[in-house]
Amino acid sequence: MNNLLIFGVGLIGGSIALESQKKQMFNQVIGVQREGGTSLSSFVSNGMIDRISEDLNKDIKQADFIVIATPVAQIENILKIIAPSLSQRTIVIDVGSTKSNIMHFAKKELKEKFSQFVGCHPIAGSEQHGPSAAKINLFKNRDIILTPENETDPNKLELTSKFWKDLGGIIKTMRPLEHDQIFSTISHIPHLIAYNMVNLIAGKSNTDTLLKFAASGFKDFSRIAGSSPEVWKDISLANKVAILNDLDLFVKEINKTALLIKNEDYIALEKYFDVASKIRKNWSEKN
Amino acid sequence: MNNLLIFGVGLIGGSIALESQKKQMFNQVIGVQREGGTSLSSFVSNGMIDRISEDLNKDIKQADFIVIATPVAQIENILKIIAPSLSQRTIVIDVGSTKSNIMHFAKKELKEKFSQFVGCHPIAGSEQHGPSAAKINLFKNRDIILTPENETDPNKLELTSKFWKDLGGIIKTMRPLEHDQIFSTISHIPHLIAYNMVNLIAGKSNTDTLLKFAASGFKDFSRIAGSSPEVWKDISLANKVAILNDLDLFVKEINKTALLIKNEDYIALEKYFDVASKIRKNWSEKN
Repeated sequence: MNNLLIFGVGLIGGSIALESQKKQMFNQVIGVQREGGTSLSSFVSNGMIDRISEDLNKDIKQADFIVIATPVAQIENILKIIAPSLSQRTIVIDVGSTKSNIMHFAKKELKEKFSQFVGCHPIAGSEQHGPSAAKINLFKNRDIILTPENETDPNKLELTSKFWKDLGGIIKTMRPLEHDQIFSTISHIPHLIAYNMVNLIAGKSNTDTLLKFAASGFKDFSRIAGSSPEVWKDISLANKVAILNDLDLFVKEINKTALLIKNEDYIALEKYFDVASKIRKNWSEKN
Repeated sequence: MNNLLIFGVGLIGGSIALESQKKQMFNQVIGVQREGGTSLSSFVSNGMIDRISEDLNKDIKQADFIVIATPVAQIENILKIIAPSLSQRTIVIDVGSTKSNIMHFAKKELKEKFSQFVGCHPIAGSEQHGPSAAKINLFKNRDIILTPENETDPNKLELTSKFWKDLGGIIKTMRPLEHDQIFSTISHIPHLIAYNMVNLIAGKSNTDTLLKFAASGFKDFSRIAGSSPEVWKDISLANKVAILNDLDLFVKEINKTALLIKNEDYIALEKYFDVASKIRKNWSEKN
């Protein structure tokens, strides 16, 4: 294909640029400069992208493949911007961590061109963000979840699969709602809980002492609390229903534990921990 | 000193044995076999300990230094066992993750010999446990918290400091209650929450699918859920007051987050995440 146009040259968008340049998947990789975002000029100099888009409508029209890799909250607006100029051959994908809302926006904004859109979620996050965090091999052997709908053009779906396989990923397909429920539980909730953990410490009068004695358990546990507040604010709102349901279940787990401790029910408490410990050990042997 | 007697030859007790053998700190390192515990005979063969205690009362009487490194719930009973045979010169330490309750037990069981006891907490845990997890350098540059009381013999406190420094540790001193409140927040709560997280997944109908897609965020977050259920059941009960208080504060943090999401208050939500993100990043630069 000729032209790859990337909105959001950050960790994911930048890594797509790097990898597709290395593998010469496109003749030209073009980045869209975000107003107020990190300047992309140094990433032209170092070859991550070939150029920064100057005539956006023209670049949209001429693009073979458009990647929207911005924070989730900006995707709707970008779909609105690209819709009028979108050529029939062009494939549009996103890489957002939520899918139901994005599929809904795409249907609403792209209308009859919705068949050209393929919702994607590469499972290759990091608490690092921004274009300097981009790297080669980010997608190697990582799951890439595609959430096609009935209207999705089979040929464009096929080319999207090929695009991700060329980048090193492994394709999985599921319905948008199923995706959102799964990722609420295994990704969004851990992030929120990590923020909660750090803010529990921040709310105490002896925060500095607490942080001084925080050891490796806290280190691993709270790593994801270094993640981008903007990204996670967007995800929290975009996957509101599943997240609120899971937070409610999480509070129930905490209350269950607190009750066992209060009642000094040491047999049930050890059993409760044992279930988790066995699952985690079994999981880590396979991962 | 001549004889080191270790109750609980596990991660901590075994590492003390290994390191003190390497540095020739004692003439003899003796392990106490726990009924139903991992057999220690192979750890005599490999030189971690010199021998297994056969006449426990005699070994207690002849010990210069006794380390109690069993799970917290067994410490009271061990203090009861050693009290009658304890010679005046002998120093007794524990390595438990809670201190108020242990200082209380020591006072009750050792009575006039309580001055010979020094409460210790080496900050050198791991989700690994048992004698096979023991290793050289476990205490190198790690904080070792001592919680002496007014009655503690200054000479024995000094020798205990020297013992830990010889093992590579850095001595910190604090009151038992202060210790327990600090470690509830930065260690005990993260462990409980990690168990909660895994059990949230265990309670769902699609546990296998969820675990299949769990990525690096979940990996780090849940690592400590692989920790010993027995140890953490003991700690939860031993530090009940501080832990119940912190769990209550944690639920408040979750409810605060849930309310911001429900109200779609994206400004306050991003600010809430930003506080945590800044603290975590600042901490990780120093640690």
